[in-house]
Amino acid sequence: MTESNKPSLEVCLSPALLHLYDVKNSIVVIIDVLRATSTICTALYNGAAKVIPVATVEECVNIGRAIGGITAGERDGKVAEGLVHGNSPFEYPRDFIEGKTLVLTTTNGTKLLHMAKDAIQIVTGSFPNISAVCDYLIAQGQPVILGCAAWKDRVNMEDTLFAGAVVNRIKDHFNVDCDSAIAAESLYNTAKDDIYSFMQQASHYKRLANYGLEKDIQFCLTPDGSNVLPIFKNGELVTAEVPVS
Amino acid sequence: MTESNKPSLEVCLSPALLHLYDVKNSIVVIIDVLRATSTICTALYNGAAKVIPVATVEECVNIGRAIGGITAGERDGKVAEGLVHGNSPFEYPRDFIEGKTLVLTTTNGTKLLHMAKDAIQIVTGSFPNISAVCDYLIAQGQPVILGCAAWKDRVNMEDTLFAGAVVNRIKDHFNVDCDSAIAAESLYNTAKDDIYSFMQQASHYKRLANYGLEKDIQFCLTPDGSNVLPIFKNGELVTAEVPVS
Repeated sequence: MTESNKPSLEVCLSPALLHLYDVKNSIVVIIDVLRATSTICTALYNGAAKVIPVATVEECVNIGRAIGGITAGERDGKVAEGLVHGNSPFEYPRDFIEGKTLVLTTTNGTKLLHMAKDAIQIVTGSFPNISAVCDYLIAQGQPVILGCAAWKDRVNMEDTLFAGAVVNRIKDHFNVDCDSAIAAESLYNTAKDDIYSFMQQASHYKRLANYGLEKDIQFCLTPDGSNVLPIFKNGELVTAEVPVS
Repeated sequence: MTESNKPSLEVCLSPALLHLYDVKNSIVVIIDVLRATSTICTALYNGAAKVIPVATVEECVNIGRAIGGITAGERDGKVAEGLVHGNSPFEYPRDFIEGKTLVLTTTNGTKLLHMAKDAIQIVTGSFPNISAVCDYLIAQGQPVILGCAAWKDRVNMEDTLFAGAVVNRIKDHFNVDCDSAIAAESLYNTAKDDIYSFMQQASHYKRLANYGLEKDIQFCLTPDGSNVLPIFKNGELVTAEVPVS
């Protein structure tokens, strides 16, 4: 294919910029590296039947009660009142989560997911499932928006780095005419040899590290620890079959 | 000073994100590298009495007529209908612009400037006046927002690179707890040894290069060709005295 008839690959650095993109005609990858989308793929990798992302603690409690699901979510680094579990991927090993439904409330990731509801397809991405995401995007051959959940709409390092890592891996299959994508890839190239050290300057790292979550951060920055593809269907994230590219 | 009592230094990558920043308590640097803010400092450097930034061609025509100013502005790479001059810094040599008022309409830069009107102070920045901007910011000792004009709200390479260059120069005097600032500086560090080549991947470069403006782009990416500080007062940009830091 020539450059011009390859599908587009773009990066949206904040939900507050999503209206500038042609969501309706694209596959959108929701990126919330620390820690929502890392935890979602980990729960599914470990056999969760599905993950239901919800916006509020109240919804989480109500849906969890109605369907007998595991309710989870944090606010300010603590398990939210009324919920049972937190946002750490390590809370969802196979012997706990297999066959169950996780009802997860996160602020940034869930907000973006609902904003992208008209997309051709929505999947979630993070370092623990980067290969599944990349294989899927290449196989689909559709325009792609890598959507960073950011932090309260502010551009953040970890989601930008993941978007850059995806651009780096799949750009030969796409037409990349997007300065955010070029910048994200450049940033990733600078960081990739020691991404954990690079992240130590980032604002969210400092926030999470204050809660003693270095182990979570290491896991969330490491490729392919939970390499499945969560795909959004009828309000639920389920494990998709990943075609081999 | 310790880190925590230094003033903050933040980067806002798009006007659509400006509401997330504390504009009212900050100095805002308006950045529209290709080419509005490069042309503004060049006109002032060459002796223009002032530059009046306006949003529309109609305002430009009306104000230009009322005060006998030079009307300038482009739309889609051509001098806009009803105006006399374009956006190139090379259109404003001393023997033409000295003592005159330039009434300039640009879309992205002017929009951001008006959005930042409640700031402590507004100045404009670009590579041709980077030293004046940095000296000023250090001397003021106030919180700073480096505001990228972007391209129709989409993050662009050239404004991000300039923001990163400023962060790189002045960060020791500020507290940088902003992932956009850290990312912009990293990008600048990657690009700085050959910023012109780096820019050739950027979307705006391609747009302008189509109009044959490589000479403009070279000038707009080169430090200190027009090293004065445009400061916004009562709707006009005038040359400020730059304190020595």
